[in-house]
Amino acid sequence: MADVLAEACPSRGVLDHVASRWGVLVLFALREETLRFGELRKKVGGVSEKMLAQTLSTLERDGFIRREAHAVIPPRVDYSLTTLGVALAERVEHLVDFVEANVSTITKAQSKYDRRRRGDD
Amino acid sequence: MADVLAEACPSRGVLDHVASRWGVLVLFALREETLRFGELRKKVGGVSEKMLAQTLSTLERDGFIRREAHAVIPPRVDYSLTTLGVALAERVEHLVDFVEANVSTITKAQSKYDRRRRGDD
Repeated sequence: MADVLAEACPSRGVLDHVASRWGVLVLFALREETLRFGELRKKVGGVSEKMLAQTLSTLERDGFIRREAHAVIPPRVDYSLTTLGVALAERVEHLVDFVEANVSTITKAQSKYDRRRRGDD
Repeated sequence: MADVLAEACPSRGVLDHVASRWGVLVLFALREETLRFGELRKKVGGVSEKMLAQTLSTLERDGFIRREAHAVIPPRVDYSLTTLGVALAERVEHLVDFVEANVSTITKAQSKYDRRRRGDD
């Protein structure tokens, strides 16, 4: 049985790909559409070319992303989710939705924590 | 409206805490029980004292984790999830469950990718 809490479990390695800033954002960005590299890079704010390429190949290797190169001029490479990737992206979306929906509560908690730390409260 | 895909959105910062190896594992480890620092460290395989302390204070600051110091000898500090943390940990658990349940499919995909890369296929 897989157990991510165990350091040596293979699931831990996969979790590292999935539970990472760029992994989450790329899966989230691809959940509704097929995108080219440049389109993805535009959609995922702040990602560098190198980090995007690395994240895409890691997720392709895990079987979550399909890479399709088209022999056209200029060359075109499309990225989309596999069936497994769609299932994963649903979980990721739930997590992202939660963060987005609760960001103001969280920001308030952060300010309260910082005030307490400064001794204002 | 919060948008994690936008680099400057405050939700992006929170996502970084949540979508991180140790953030996920600590939330996952606390989902069913209150634990002391040493217990958590034992449960989350491979985490260093420094990383665990840092992860806990980040998640406490976000309002996901409650830290309770008891004035006993020896001193005891308990960590548990807040109501917001419980809701977050549920999403995290769905993600972790998915990874654990699909680890053999993913491992096979990785081997296939590596063989193709080596030109065996």
